Amino acid sequence: MYSVTPDMLERLAIGAGILGTGGGGNPYNGKLRALAQLRMGRSVTIVHPSEVPDAAMITSVGGMGAPVVGVERISQGEESLRAMRALEREIGCAIEYVVPSEIGGGNSIAPIIVGAQAGIPVIDGDGMGRAFPELQMETYVMYGIPPTPGALSDHSGRSVIFNGISDPTTLERYGRAVTIQMGGGAGYAFPPMSGAELKRTVIPGTLSLAVKLGDVVLYERSGHGDPVGAVAEAAGGSVLFTGKIVDVERRLEGGFSRGSVTIEGKDLDNGERIKIDIQNENLIARSEAGELIAVVPDLICIVDEESAEPITTELLRYGLRVSVIGIAAPEALKTDTALAYVGPAAFGYADVPYVQLPGIYGGSGFDQGGPWN
Amino acid sequence: MYSVTPDMLERLAIGAGILGTGGGGNPYNGKLRALAQLRMGRSVTIVHPSEVPDAAMITSVGGMGAPVVGVERISQGEESLRAMRALEREIGCAIEYVVPSEIGGGNSIAPIIVGAQAGIPVIDGDGMGRAFPELQMETYVMYGIPPTPGALSDHSGRSVIFNGISDPTTLERYGRAVTIQMGGGAGYAFPPMSGAELKRTVIPGTLSLAVKLGDVVLYERSGHGDPVGAVAEAAGGSVLFTGKIVDVERRLEGGFSRGSVTIEGKDLDNGERIKIDIQNENLIARSEAGELIAVVPDLICIVDEESAEPITTELLRYGLRVSVIGIAAPEALKTDTALAYVGPAAFGYADVPYVQLPGIYGGSGFDQGGPWN
Repeated sequence: MYSVTPDMLERLAIGAGILGTGGGGNPYNGKLRALAQLRMGRSVTIVHPSEVPDAAMITSVGGMGAPVVGVERISQGEESLRAMRALEREIGCAIEYVVPSEIGGGNSIAPIIVGAQAGIPVIDGDGMGRAFPELQMETYVMYGIPPTPGALSDHSGRSVIFNGISDPTTLERYGRAVTIQMGGGAGYAFPPMSGAELKRTVIPGTLSLAVKLGDVVLYERSGHGDPVGAVAEAAGGSVLFTGKIVDVERRLEGGFSRGSVTIEGKDLDNGERIKIDIQNENLIARSEAGELIAVVPDLICIVDEESAEPITTELLRYGLRVSVIGIAAPEALKTDTALAYVGPAAFGYADVPYVQLPGIYGGSGFDQGGPWN
Repeated sequence: MYSVTPDMLERLAIGAGILGTGGGGNPYNGKLRALAQLRMGRSVTIVHPSEVPDAAMITSVGGMGAPVVGVERISQGEESLRAMRALEREIGCAIEYVVPSEIGGGNSIAPIIVGAQAGIPVIDGDGMGRAFPELQMETYVMYGIPPTPGALSDHSGRSVIFNGISDPTTLERYGRAVTIQMGGGAGYAFPPMSGAELKRTVIPGTLSLAVKLGDVVLYERSGHGDPVGAVAEAAGGSVLFTGKIVDVERRLEGGFSRGSVTIEGKDLDNGERIKIDIQNENLIARSEAGELIAVVPDLICIVDEESAEPITTELLRYGLRVSVIGIAAPEALKTDTALAYVGPAAFGYADVPYVQLPGIYGGSGFDQGGPWN
């Protein structure tokens, strides 16, 4: 158990940006909002799942919608809190802890903002160990917690409650349809879960992991060496490629950012290129010859070649010099159950096998959570 | 106050089919379901709005979605009841009466089914005096009753609650998006209203009017004369045109049935034709020269030329011999407030003026309700 500080938020924003694999929303706005909460004198405690009573009531909160909308339309700031309040009214009891559904991007920080606004602690852990574009892709519902009741709220106080939906993919469809009507972005709160359910399904320690990654990056940046290499090692991953972005294709489709980015290797003499397919997050990296380099759910993280500053999907542009870091997915995402939701086939790549990256998510000795059954 | 009988349901289905102006869903399935409720020994009382206490809690219930879906996918039968139950949970008190939101088509009968299922009375009146495709087009919300909380439920027990939406057109968008996700059809319950609010906004007596129209049709059919002419007169309208359907254009678009029907006059020597534009309901009738014959919100009802059997939009087809009955809209739909929601411009016909049909909705002496302010 520890308290959130401004320094920690700086580090979390960087680490969550890296683990966001391009998605989850840019953490920058979220960081500013969280800092504003601290400046108002509010405090937030981070609690490891093992410290949570079995009977406690928890929900995950965050923002739903295409990240690009979050950049172009500043949120009102209480969307996720309102969604949690709507959920509390529906279930008839108070939420005692909030937990990130994804550690990637802005949704790692959203629960800290809600924790500060509501005066409740935030769980050190999440349901993805990274970012994913759809809500059925989180371990809570993947491993059997009923996805509803769930709530969405918008900037003007409208809220929508979903109930009786046992299939998370159906809730995703419903939620996406409503989010589009809400202008492309909404705050969410779902699923309500007990402490016991949380402990069975959460990927523990990922908030601390993200802070650690940000810490490594800042330390290396301050003249100690190689931010990209160091952060890759700290995450348990490796640098897959370094080069210049030479093509970005991006479109907004059904509430998602879809497209691809092509990166040309530094050594222009051999002109090697890789292409990364995107659906809010970086999904699949292939060589120019079509050879698989990394495949979802493994993490494909695009960062600035010098500073290791994470580059989210909506900020990709021609000419950026970047490194691609590959990190093996958390064990919770590699079970057969999980791969049905987050493997390449779940993103429409029926013919792409999941080829595991070597290494251990979070580095050797990182608590992988479970048992998930 | 009177009880629903099987005979009355037969008449209501015909009358509601006529007042449905092509939409509101085919009343046939609803009639069978309501008859099944009576056969199970359940009873339903019809109560005039003037008999409802000011403090009573009322909501309107029915089905949302393109009528063609209701024909192709049989409903489970408790969608609207479940929506009402979800609404009751949300508002924390029991609904004491249900009221039709539209008297046209299946949505005139849906409240009778819910009344039988829940054991509560049904109000003699509705919020349209006809059928309309969108929920902001009912007098309850048009005249200021907040549209939410409102609920949608589907055939498998999923429910969605909307809250904090003050603009009925926004609720329509949200509800339509969810209905599409629910497979194109859903039961709804909204808005919760007091007896006093009901009495200020309802168009009273329309359930009885629909039964009367069905009664006239059956009487005339049984050898007494001219069903079409008699029912037009009983409704306070007139026969505008009689002929053969020579063209039907119809498509499903954004959850609506849209298109047009062309009818060729009986006297083939002069080959006169009229064309009626459709969006779930019949909207605008024009002569071949483009002259306006009847314009929404006035009622344009297509019935079988011989039997006066109403023909809903989804049953229109080449070769049917039909009569077109025109009925002046209820006074509640002709105020400036109402015309903004249900006049031709509200359906995208910015350049079409509302040219009132002569006559009085329901015939002379029919109680037009109000005051609506």
